[in-house]
Amino acid sequence: MSNLSTYADVLTAAERIRPFVQRTPVFTSETLDARAGRRLFFKGELLQKSGSFKYRGATNAVRRLDADAAARGVVTHSSGNHGQALALAARTRGIPATIVMPANASAVKSAAIAGYGAKIVESGPSLPEREAKVAEIQAATGAAYIPPFDHPDVIAGQGTAALELLQDEPGIAALIAPIGGGGLISGFSLAAKGFNPTIRIFGAEPVGASAAAQSMAVGERVKLSVATSIADGLLANYVGLMTWPIIAANVERVFTVSEEDIANAMRLVWERMKLLIEPSAAVGVAVALSDEFRALPGLEKVGIVLCGGNVTLDKLYW
Amino acid sequence: MSNLSTYADVLTAAERIRPFVQRTPVFTSETLDARAGRRLFFKGELLQKSGSFKYRGATNAVRRLDADAAARGVVTHSSGNHGQALALAARTRGIPATIVMPANASAVKSAAIAGYGAKIVESGPSLPEREAKVAEIQAATGAAYIPPFDHPDVIAGQGTAALELLQDEPGIAALIAPIGGGGLISGFSLAAKGFNPTIRIFGAEPVGASAAAQSMAVGERVKLSVATSIADGLLANYVGLMTWPIIAANVERVFTVSEEDIANAMRLVWERMKLLIEPSAAVGVAVALSDEFRALPGLEKVGIVLCGGNVTLDKLYW
Repeated sequence: MSNLSTYADVLTAAERIRPFVQRTPVFTSETLDARAGRRLFFKGELLQKSGSFKYRGATNAVRRLDADAAARGVVTHSSGNHGQALALAARTRGIPATIVMPANASAVKSAAIAGYGAKIVESGPSLPEREAKVAEIQAATGAAYIPPFDHPDVIAGQGTAALELLQDEPGIAALIAPIGGGGLISGFSLAAKGFNPTIRIFGAEPVGASAAAQSMAVGERVKLSVATSIADGLLANYVGLMTWPIIAANVERVFTVSEEDIANAMRLVWERMKLLIEPSAAVGVAVALSDEFRALPGLEKVGIVLCGGNVTLDKLYW
Repeated sequence: MSNLSTYADVLTAAERIRPFVQRTPVFTSETLDARAGRRLFFKGELLQKSGSFKYRGATNAVRRLDADAAARGVVTHSSGNHGQALALAARTRGIPATIVMPANASAVKSAAIAGYGAKIVESGPSLPEREAKVAEIQAATGAAYIPPFDHPDVIAGQGTAALELLQDEPGIAALIAPIGGGGLISGFSLAAKGFNPTIRIFGAEPVGASAAAQSMAVGERVKLSVATSIADGLLANYVGLMTWPIIAANVERVFTVSEEDIANAMRLVWERMKLLIEPSAAVGVAVALSDEFRALPGLEKVGIVLCGGNVTLDKLYW
C-alpha cells in the first residue's frame, strides 16, 4: 500500500465499493443557478448510506482488509459521520467495529452508531485522550484503525463521488468541496485531475474553522487553537498530514463563508431543492452563491457536493 | 373533450407534458421498509417543478388550450400548491395567469405565486366568495378556469406520476395516495388500473379531513362542515364531482391517520430519507407504517407518492 493516493486508487476504489454504496443522484435547481450566475450540479451524498459521503471511504477501507485483519475488526474515534459510516461498513461486511466517543457526545449520534451495531467506548474529549483509547483497543483486539481522513483508502474512497459526478456531467469545469480534515477534497481533486486535468478545484470553509485557507495562505499546515461553526462536520483544527500535500498541489483557492451565509444557504437548499442537507454541506453552496465566487470568469458548469444530511431536527438553524 | 378521464387520457397527457415536467426519481429506504414490513417505492414529486405533483395537471390543462384560448389566460382560486403550479405552467407557456386568494392567505404563499409572475386577486375566504371572484375575472378576460382537481385534464395530468412510477417499478402491487379533493388518487387509479388491472389502490386521509373515507363508508359524497389538519394540502370539505365516481370505482379502502402519526412520519422521512416532504405527503407514509396497513397480507412492493415539499420553514412540526 502506497502512502500517497492516486487517480488509479480512486478508480480501484470505485470498482471495489460499487456493490455496497449508492450511486447518488445529481440534482439541479434553476433557482440556485440564477443566484449563482452559472449552472450548478449537486452530487447528492446526503442520500448516501449512513447519511454522508463518509460511507465511501469507510467501505473502501473495510473492504480492502484481508480476511484475517477484517476478523479482528476496525476501530476509530469519531462522534460524527465517520463513526456512523464505519459502523455500517463494518456491519455490512459482518465484522466488529468499535467507535471511541467523548463522554459528552450527543445521545442522538451515539444512538445512531449503536443502531448500526458498533460497540461504543467512551473517552475524554481531547484528541490525545481519544487517540490513547484507540491505541488501547488496538493493542487488546488487533483491530485496524481507520481514521476519518488521513488514510489512503479513505481518501480514494471519497474520490469516487467526484468520479460519478464527472461521469454524469463531463462538462463540469470546476468542483467546490468543503474542507474539515481534507479527506473529501483530497479524493475529489485526485479524481477530477485524473479525469480531466483542466478541472479547477476550490475549497469551502467556515470563517471560524478555516485551517485549510490559513494553511494555503502561509504555505504550510496551520494548527488552529479553536475551531467553531454550526458546520459541525468541518470542525478540524488542522488538515491532515496526508491530505495537506494533495490539497497544496491541487486546490486553487479556499473560500471562507460566515455562519449567516451557511445558515442562509442551508435554508435555501431545504426550501427550494427540498433536500435536507446538514450545515457542512451548505458551506460549499454558500461559496457558490458568494460575490467572490460569482466574480470568477468562465466556469459555466460547477459541481458541488452535498456531503451529508445528518442533522438534528430538534431545532431550526435560522 | 370527454367529461370522464380514461387511461388513454393519462397516456396522452404523459406525451403532452413530457418536455415540461421533471421525471422525478423513485426513492427507497431500508429503514422505512423495515418499519412497514414490506418494500416501499417513493415517487419523489416533492422535486417536481413548483414543488408538487400539481404541476403535472396544471401543465396538461394549460398545454391543451388552443392558441386563442391560451392567449386569454387562465384563472383559478387556490392559496396552495395548485396556485403555484398553475402560475408556473402559465408562465412557461407565456400566457397570463390570475390566482384568486383569500385576503388572509400566508405571505409566503402569495410571494411564491407572485414570484412565478401571476396576478394575485384577493377575495373573501369562503368558497362562494372565491368562486364569484373567479367568475368575475372569467367574464372580464375570457380566461379559462382551471380548478384544482375537478377537471379531466388535471386528473389525467396527475396520473402521469403513477405511470412513471409503475414504468420504473412494474412489480408494484399497490399504490397509496393522499386524498384532498381527489385529483391525485383519481389520476393514479386510472393510470394504475390501465397499466395493470390487478394493482390495488388505497387512499390516505387525516382523521380531521376524511371526506373520502366517510363518503366511501356511506356510498355517496359526504360534505364535511369543517376540515382540519396540519396536512394543509388535504383540507377539502368534499371530494369532487368528477373525482368521486373514479374513487368509488377504483379505490379499495381509505385509511385515516392521526395528526401525531402524520408528524411522526414526516419527521422520519426528513431524518432518514433526507427529503423535505410537506405534511400532506406524510399522510400516505403514515398509512404505510400503520398497524392496519401492515396487517394486509401480500403486497410485497407498495408505491407511495411524496406529493409535495412546500412547507414553511419558520417552525418545526413536532
